[in-house]
Amino acid sequence: MSTIYIVGSAVTKFGELWDKSLRDLIQDAAFSAIKDATLEPKDIEAIFIGNMAANQFEGQSHLGALVSSFFPHFPPSMRIESACASGSLAMLTAENALLAQRYNTVLVIGAEKMTDVDASVTTDILAGAADVEKEQRSTFPGLYALLAQAHMQKFKTTSEQLANVAVKNHHNALANPHAQFHKEITVQDVIQSPMVAEPLHLLDCSPISDGASAVVLSTKKHHSNIIIAGTGHAQDTLALADRKSLTEFASTQKAATQAYAQANISAADIEAAEMHDCFTIAEIFAVEDLGFCKKGKGGQYIQQTQTRQELNPSGGLKACGHPVGATGVKQIAYLHQQMKLGRWNVTLAHNIGGSGATAVVHILKQGKNL
Amino acid sequence: MSTIYIVGSAVTKFGELWDKSLRDLIQDAAFSAIKDATLEPKDIEAIFIGNMAANQFEGQSHLGALVSSFFPHFPPSMRIESACASGSLAMLTAENALLAQRYNTVLVIGAEKMTDVDASVTTDILAGAADVEKEQRSTFPGLYALLAQAHMQKFKTTSEQLANVAVKNHHNALANPHAQFHKEITVQDVIQSPMVAEPLHLLDCSPISDGASAVVLSTKKHHSNIIIAGTGHAQDTLALADRKSLTEFASTQKAATQAYAQANISAADIEAAEMHDCFTIAEIFAVEDLGFCKKGKGGQYIQQTQTRQELNPSGGLKACGHPVGATGVKQIAYLHQQMKLGRWNVTLAHNIGGSGATAVVHILKQGKNL
Repeated sequence: MSTIYIVGSAVTKFGELWDKSLRDLIQDAAFSAIKDATLEPKDIEAIFIGNMAANQFEGQSHLGALVSSFFPHFPPSMRIESACASGSLAMLTAENALLAQRYNTVLVIGAEKMTDVDASVTTDILAGAADVEKEQRSTFPGLYALLAQAHMQKFKTTSEQLANVAVKNHHNALANPHAQFHKEITVQDVIQSPMVAEPLHLLDCSPISDGASAVVLSTKKHHSNIIIAGTGHAQDTLALADRKSLTEFASTQKAATQAYAQANISAADIEAAEMHDCFTIAEIFAVEDLGFCKKGKGGQYIQQTQTRQELNPSGGLKACGHPVGATGVKQIAYLHQQMKLGRWNVTLAHNIGGSGATAVVHILKQGKNL
Repeated sequence: MSTIYIVGSAVTKFGELWDKSLRDLIQDAAFSAIKDATLEPKDIEAIFIGNMAANQFEGQSHLGALVSSFFPHFPPSMRIESACASGSLAMLTAENALLAQRYNTVLVIGAEKMTDVDASVTTDILAGAADVEKEQRSTFPGLYALLAQAHMQKFKTTSEQLANVAVKNHHNALANPHAQFHKEITVQDVIQSPMVAEPLHLLDCSPISDGASAVVLSTKKHHSNIIIAGTGHAQDTLALADRKSLTEFASTQKAATQAYAQANISAADIEAAEMHDCFTIAEIFAVEDLGFCKKGKGGQYIQQTQTRQELNPSGGLKACGHPVGATGVKQIAYLHQQMKLGRWNVTLAHNIGGSGATAVVHILKQGKNL
């Protein structure tokens, strides 16, 4: 099997970008990533774009063909959708196409433009990521509130521990120029913010965002020594009511096990992790299910850890922003950019679709660890 | 590289299926295909589902996770969307995952449930497969009418030749129990049917349909000697206004060239072809662009050919029906079923997204041709 190198990456500013269209964001991320790879557009042999709902947000389906049209040679292109895990599954699809020896160098894009419609419309579109028959169009704050309640009841996790995730991620985002929020917040700010779905306050929730991200992958080294060392992809039931447990994501556990095994490492080897903190409780689930701490101890772990800057260093979904289709690609683009600067050698990206029905884990390695 | 065998397939009835939900259709096709392969659900290692717009038709995104939930072991699963080519690109994605040695046996599903909303809503949803900015939500009959006008002007193609495509496909559908229409029509019927977008009459257009299809692919032979011998995937500009020519689909030509080369055959070797006749003019484009006859002679070729039953033998999109995400998988499932009966040894499936922006060609072989 070939080695897959990350040879270029880019992330647009995330936020309420009312002066940019979805097309603008895609082109910006795509061509910046190609430039970062010191390649030309014609070097891209195929494109994989992760997007959840451009057909609902802007009436535009067939994004693969749209993106291909931006290139002089119209490379083969397709869109992958798995709700908020669309970006990381676009990555996985691209990796498979490379390993299948169909292409040598491909572009992966993640993009979503969510702020051009009313927030109530966005909430309804996002509810489509749950089981619309069994969960009756529950909102995602509502579904994650159930998970938070279960975790608090079973493990004595506190509202302060939830709030602390948001405080940390807002702090980390200060150093990320692409982040949606550049504002320190306190535990008190979170707890005093309006209640959305008990126990989740407004500041426990990631925002509605516009943004795009892109990564160039190649089986040729080019100038990169950063590789995808492991990938895992697993599912659980779409509806929470069908789960065996409401205090863990078996999908994350399975995907992480696969990725660690492929990369021949364990959780203890991870130096930094981008995790799917769509709500603060989700990062507590993630640190436990990825094996960074024992089940039930996630709130404490994040409070006490000496490596707070290595848990969602970009600011996570909470503070960097969460343009849903973009997130899975942005996590990897961000880690790639930091690893190029020598910040870490072994990192992990963890992307979730729905309330844990889909989980994807990527492990990146560089330099002496190859 | 491994050989990929088609080891099972199934197609539901296509039509206005008001007593079936999308879930019903998916389960019906999926488990019938697994049974056809004499496998068990637990043997499926991953799932790839092609669907254009379930989030618009039924508010349900995240179909990959939904489908995985139907299985006892929740296999990894994702959705692929490329408008009306969603099904064939789900096939290609599955093939890549097998060739990447990530899995040995996977399930590909195509599904769409289109008749639960008003036809005007469906028309608007389908318009999202065009370039919504440059083509201003033109309808697809309107876009294909432009292509038909160009072809008629340049090559003297006649309305009778267009009509003849529909007549042939309705005839072929009589032998297909899953077809939406079981009704012979005449050239006069087509020409006297209401004009939708000149020169396309109502009976030049494929219908709005519900339906699902599924194929089990494996790198293990099981009981099958039918393989995927070649695959091609190419794009052209999303908007017709950006095309170099309005009388050909360069995407089909490129995809066919790739597929023929990989299968080590030429157009003359194809014994039967399922082609993307969303409108009658599209089959005329297809027979020319796939190399079955000279450019401009498609209308005549279909009129004169002695092998009319081998051109869209299922009845094509026109008479078998066109549940958009299902079509690309149904073409391959139909050919697989007929080849199992010994009807042909080398066949081709041709699936289009939009007005030719995406084209995917598959070549199947069996028995002595392997």
